[in-house]
Amino acid sequence: MIVTLLTDYGRDDEFVGVCHAVIRTIHPGAEIVDLTHGIPRHAVRQGAIVLRNALPYLPPGVHVAVVDPQVGTERRALALRCADGSVLVGPDNGVLSLAWAAAGGVHEAYDISRSPHRLEPVSATFHGRDVFAPVAAQLAKGAPLPEAGEPLDPDELAVVELSASRREGDSVVAQAVTVDRYGNVGLNAGHADLAGTELRLGSELEVEVRGARHSGRVAETFADVAPDELILYEDAYRTLAVALNRGDAAATLGIRIDDEVRLSPR
Amino acid sequence: MIVTLLTDYGRDDEFVGVCHAVIRTIHPGAEIVDLTHGIPRHAVRQGAIVLRNALPYLPPGVHVAVVDPQVGTERRALALRCADGSVLVGPDNGVLSLAWAAAGGVHEAYDISRSPHRLEPVSATFHGRDVFAPVAAQLAKGAPLPEAGEPLDPDELAVVELSASRREGDSVVAQAVTVDRYGNVGLNAGHADLAGTELRLGSELEVEVRGARHSGRVAETFADVAPDELILYEDAYRTLAVALNRGDAAATLGIRIDDEVRLSPR
Amino acid sequence: MIVTLLTDYGRDDEFVGVCHAVIRTIHPGAEIVDLTHGIPRHAVRQGAIVLRNALPYLPPGVHVAVVDPQVGTERRALALRCADGSVLVGPDNGVLSLAWAAAGGVHEAYDISRSPHRLEPVSATFHGRDVFAPVAAQLAKGAPLPEAGEPLDPDELAVVELSASRREGDSVVAQAVTVDRYGNVGLNAGHADLAGTELRLGSELEVEVRGARHSGRVAETFADVAPDELILYEDAYRTLAVALNRGDAAATLGIRIDDEVRLSPR
Repeated sequence: MIVTLLTDYGRDDEFVGVCHAVIRTIHPGAEIVDLTHGIPRHAVRQGAIVLRNALPYLPPGVHVAVVDPQVGTERRALALRCADGSVLVGPDNGVLSLAWAAAGGVHEAYDISRSPHRLEPVSATFHGRDVFAPVAAQLAKGAPLPEAGEPLDPDELAVVELSASRREGDSVVAQAVTVDRYGNVGLNAGHADLAGTELRLGSELEVEVRGARHSGRVAETFADVAPDELILYEDAYRTLAVALNRGDAAATLGIRIDDEVRLSPR
Repeated sequence: MIVTLLTDYGRDDEFVGVCHAVIRTIHPGAEIVDLTHGIPRHAVRQGAIVLRNALPYLPPGVHVAVVDPQVGTERRALALRCADGSVLVGPDNGVLSLAWAAAGGVHEAYDISRSPHRLEPVSATFHGRDVFAPVAAQLAKGAPLPEAGEPLDPDELAVVELSASRREGDSVVAQAVTVDRYGNVGLNAGHADLAGTELRLGSELEVEVRGARHSGRVAETFADVAPDELILYEDAYRTLAVALNRGDAAATLGIRIDDEVRLSPR
Repeated sequence: MIVTLLTDYGRDDEFVGVCHAVIRTIHPGAEIVDLTHGIPRHAVRQGAIVLRNALPYLPPGVHVAVVDPQVGTERRALALRCADGSVLVGPDNGVLSLAWAAAGGVHEAYDISRSPHRLEPVSATFHGRDVFAPVAAQLAKGAPLPEAGEPLDPDELAVVELSASRREGDSVVAQAVTVDRYGNVGLNAGHADLAGTELRLGSELEVEVRGARHSGRVAETFADVAPDELILYEDAYRTLAVALNRGDAAATLGIRIDDEVRLSPR
């Protein structure tokens, strides 16, 4: 089974490389996919969203997510199996929760904080290396999940809460939940949330954020509009997003994660 | 066969990881080389140059290049075989064209926009995941090229034009075509273009760019000169380049892609 | 045998990808771990420290380190075997020296500058591609070490010198030797160097650097203190480090590599 990794470790340091080395030491020939290591530091919710979005494209395997501001404290470490068979490994802070919800819920869960698979001594700050990577490697190699730790009640696991967008008259009020390297801003809304408004493909819209209003258009893709024009579109994960064609919407409009984004017909 | 990937996706988001996952879902055990994901956004010509430069060092395989400002429009998507057997996959915007010219030209070409290998539904903005990765995976796994799409006339494919450097008296007037992370600036010229000038190994030169003149030396490598001294040298792909030993020539001299760079003996 | 790579090439350019391609051309199916490519440019000592720290976590293999300001000059290129069996490949400038010291010393060493395995013609600026990657690939594939080059006296190899921290009264005066992406600052000191001082787990301390004094605490991990509080802790490689919980200690305190950092009880 493949191992996928999602972290906020970045690529500048050796953290990711050491995790790969630990996995390959335990499981030579392992197939590893670096889903991303660019989650903003400690951004548990964004990590949870990215993992959920990517999950349908991942081969069956052990999916590790480490965004872990509480590393070294009493927060639990988890390995669990979802109803669809996916195995998830990571801290018990909700970073896995959107993925397991999308995968049919948790079928069985284990606390791997004191897993027999972990590397001793366990450091206080690098559980990716000492706990999550070795457990994932053993599971990918075929070790039974119940041997990875102590059984947990799935109902006790921490979850990430995502607010819903809301309607106000003919407007949709959403929240910025992700920003990618191009400055495209993902919202907590999908096309269904536009139903019944005047916002449909090709129509003009107004985007209000931080008190400023910007004119744009509902479009299918960037190239449907002129350079630097603002679009509202359904992104590759079927969520609504705001972007500037060939520009950086987050920087230009000053949008930050959690900002309210009001979408209105014009 | 190996799959190599060159994109402008960067490494901060999950785009590259998802492409890996799609490839491995279709073709477990695939060998994948990330040639680079650091092509500047939408820099089709730079992507084309980097792919051409790297090609002699790549093992036989399927080489994917995705720098794709027109994604989601009617621009075609290509899979093609070069005279030397290399298989190239990417948008029909010229990003593959310098590579196929270096590989003896296009032997057969197919429009994969509606490839049976693509993932459905195809998103409007992420053809790396939905079209290019799955087609490349099938080809690497052994699927016949003609089954990937509809045949195309190779003469109709888009190409990238590279201007040539020119002589003016005893000077060579070149253009900046690439900048690497060290600020080393690749020119559209080679050592042959210096023939007949006074510019030879060890001689002093003047580099004029954006109206300012800078003194330097023709050298073999950085360490041939003092720190912060300017050199003109043949880079690892046998093209002429301008660099500052232990410094950043692009930043210090203010050189941008497409700038004219005049090289004169001093 | 696995190949691991540590360089200062960064990820934005195709340098790393081309090295992978060269390795896989020579040794199809090679297992490659990118330990890191984020060593600051030309930071030989930091590269040496990172390789030494990571070594205990690497599977048996050929470990390549390329931080090479003198590339293209007469500096030698090395392949060597340590007493513990590890094989190291890189320039003869000390970047391998802390690793071999940790691995029991050099058992046999070869100058690979003119190795029969190298790619011809060897460029003046990209020995990663032309010398180090091909030699490593051949060794990983099983080529005998003595065939890689000319024998060298291990006592003649360049080494990196690490200064030691010192006691001054009840203070420990250390030096900043690494900074990671979070701004955590690694020191040339370990817990043993605190023995006999009042600096122990939980106690308050003063950190003096560049003339300014900062209050902090000796802690086990970040989450033991409030956000933005300063800690002295033993990092995952058992060296002492200074960090701000959820902040960037290097930026906030203005600490640079080589700075003196004075640790005193408060």
